[in-house]
Amino acid sequence: MRIYDIILKKRNSNKLTKEEIVFFVNGYTKGGIPDYQVSALLMAIYFQGMDDEETAFLTEAMIKSGEVYDLSLIPGKKIDKHSTGGVGDKVSIILAPLIASVGVVVPMMSGRGLGHTGGTLDKLESIPGFRTNLTKEEFISNLKKINVAMIGQSENIAPADKKLYALRDVTGTIESIPLIASSIMSKKLAEGIDGLVLDVKTGNGAFMKKEKDAVRLAKVMAAIGKKMGKDVVALITDMNQPLGNAIGNSLEIKECIEVLKGRGPQDLIDITLELGAYMLKLGRKVNNVSKGRDILKRHLSDGSAYERFKDMIRLHGGDVSAINNPSLLPSARYTKELLSDKNGYISKMDTEAIGIASCILGAGRERIEDRIDLAVGIVVEKKVGDKIRRSERLATLYYNSEDKITEAYKRLHDAYQISRQRPKKRRLIKRIIMA
Amino acid sequence: MRIYDIILKKRNSNKLTKEEIVFFVNGYTKGGIPDYQVSALLMAIYFQGMDDEETAFLTEAMIKSGEVYDLSLIPGKKIDKHSTGGVGDKVSIILAPLIASVGVVVPMMSGRGLGHTGGTLDKLESIPGFRTNLTKEEFISNLKKINVAMIGQSENIAPADKKLYALRDVTGTIESIPLIASSIMSKKLAEGIDGLVLDVKTGNGAFMKKEKDAVRLAKVMAAIGKKMGKDVVALITDMNQPLGNAIGNSLEIKECIEVLKGRGPQDLIDITLELGAYMLKLGRKVNNVSKGRDILKRHLSDGSAYERFKDMIRLHGGDVSAINNPSLLPSARYTKELLSDKNGYISKMDTEAIGIASCILGAGRERIEDRIDLAVGIVVEKKVGDKIRRSERLATLYYNSEDKITEAYKRLHDAYQISRQRPKKRRLIKRIIMA
Repeated sequence: MRIYDIILKKRNSNKLTKEEIVFFVNGYTKGGIPDYQVSALLMAIYFQGMDDEETAFLTEAMIKSGEVYDLSLIPGKKIDKHSTGGVGDKVSIILAPLIASVGVVVPMMSGRGLGHTGGTLDKLESIPGFRTNLTKEEFISNLKKINVAMIGQSENIAPADKKLYALRDVTGTIESIPLIASSIMSKKLAEGIDGLVLDVKTGNGAFMKKEKDAVRLAKVMAAIGKKMGKDVVALITDMNQPLGNAIGNSLEIKECIEVLKGRGPQDLIDITLELGAYMLKLGRKVNNVSKGRDILKRHLSDGSAYERFKDMIRLHGGDVSAINNPSLLPSARYTKELLSDKNGYISKMDTEAIGIASCILGAGRERIEDRIDLAVGIVVEKKVGDKIRRSERLATLYYNSEDKITEAYKRLHDAYQISRQRPKKRRLIKRIIMA
Repeated sequence: MRIYDIILKKRNSNKLTKEEIVFFVNGYTKGGIPDYQVSALLMAIYFQGMDDEETAFLTEAMIKSGEVYDLSLIPGKKIDKHSTGGVGDKVSIILAPLIASVGVVVPMMSGRGLGHTGGTLDKLESIPGFRTNLTKEEFISNLKKINVAMIGQSENIAPADKKLYALRDVTGTIESIPLIASSIMSKKLAEGIDGLVLDVKTGNGAFMKKEKDAVRLAKVMAAIGKKMGKDVVALITDMNQPLGNAIGNSLEIKECIEVLKGRGPQDLIDITLELGAYMLKLGRKVNNVSKGRDILKRHLSDGSAYERFKDMIRLHGGDVSAINNPSLLPSARYTKELLSDKNGYISKMDTEAIGIASCILGAGRERIEDRIDLAVGIVVEKKVGDKIRRSERLATLYYNSEDKITEAYKRLHDAYQISRQRPKKRRLIKRIIMA
């Protein structure tokens, strides 16, 4: 078998066999196949695609390139949730302890922020002392004790995906549905889970701008799950405005605390309940999602979710006093308000621009090696459909350094669009997809 | 400017600017841009193509990556000919001295055989002592003395093309019309010529199997020539059977001697006259090709071309006695005849398979570092349209080693197709293309 023939085969729009996919993934991971041949193959895949079977073979080969966690000694169903990323998407931090409090095991591995979106690990690390780098033993021990642990991906999980992703990142081959789907699924399925709920975001703040593409991605991921014998449900959700109000690491933790205490913004609550209800269903705790939603609402209002959140923080070495008193979380020195310059309704928010504005303040990274400022960010007070008067506050910027505020302010200002007419209401949850 | 953005731009089907093309070619040649980004870009070009302007910019950037010969001190027009390659295509060896004998300067740089086709340099080197690695000074001196010199490409000519070609060769990106066209034209135009006649072959022994593709390639090359201010004419010619009868290095030299002496196979004479007539026209020696053909016929029959050929060999250090007495050229130890197993007409010859059969005997290379056997090859005695009786000879194999003869014989045998009906006659010269 030669990588050259595999490149030609895919270039000429033919289906690759399992053996060919395994040959290329293993050859690349072990260093026998050079970057330049793999990047040509990736570009050929970008153009010619892969069918569900090829994509499942690719996923499987990437999973097998590393360690697969065995959680079978932990009783009950292990269910995770993954979001394709958006602005202000802090759902995992609420959802993981919430679901754990109902008795489903949530072994969650998350990533860091990159580009205009934040990352769960960065947000969690704004809690003083919180360790996201638990050992495998600590991870499993926490799952046994409280049903939940939230960590970064270990080096041993899907190393082929890491190497391929780094190459895609510099060769213009990120935006390929089968490559995105296999990358996400290989990492998730290596966690040793039984089921997965996917939040596939679409809109001007998502990677998939078009709903059509989001649906395609969701279907491919669901198909991979099915072929690998896992329960997968995907929700297509709207990302044409930030989720909740807070954007930026410690600001988002504060908002999570609000929701876990039974308060907080309605859109954030709604999406959490919906994703969570499917997690309970996959976890065999309920037969229908409506029942799941009811249980979750109760666990938010009666403090069970909040208590589980604090248990989790304690077990991760975090300082619970900063949860009880959020003023102990990292706080920015300065604030600047964005006021409306006219009367009307918010008709549109350029969500990616808002994410970039927050990133400019220091909340996010452009490159993986950049350091971030956990305290800074944006809190939006008005969102799409809200009525606004001139000089009324739209949002507040939280910042620590004067040199970027002008640019961030301008980006945020330009991201708001105000019209005379009230815009049509948008559905937050657009579709549910199962394999 | 970033190579990443250039990859994305081409991937998304946008036209690259001259600056972007120069950036990528120079960055790659000088080593600042890594292989893996260039191979992704090449694959994107394979899929999205380049228009004539982009292709001309690419050609120009590759020319400027190295030395451009200045032949302006040599009086008269400098005209070269290039063939895209076929089986038994020995035209250059006849044509160069023939055209030189009429007074047009032919500064020819050629390549070596690779795959199923032979190379002019290898064929010339079967003449004892013949040096294809003349210095630039020797090259120019020979052109001044006898209007002709035939050498290999110097290392300094279009180094960007050399590096890009090597990468394309291992990444499945050879078969792209703009990449093929710019590769050929950059090497040819760096020779310092005024005009170029292209022999673009099509058929089952050519790289362009389909006439449509050959025409597209010819048009792109003619357009590049025009943009660079050079006269270019392309002939689309048939390669559905070997050209002439001999295939293999010294066997082909013997056939060239025949033609230069006014004898030899008609198809080889016809194509030589046609290509040559256009060279004389571009060289301003005649106003029309018909006149050109007449002059060339005379120079073949009166010995002027043959004398110029021997002058050339002498100046290249070759042994002219081997031309006067071709039995002094490398000769194979053994021969094996291929006899027909039925009566009928030759209806088809799988020309690529015949080229491969010759290659298996040792006449060609699979890899650039392979050594070749100058004496071996095949002489076909019957070609498409010829009547054949059972047990009559179709071809003869010339070989030096027993271990490959069975395979080569089988390939050659299977390459002949014999039918009851006489096949339709095919035109050798299909189209003439000018920018």
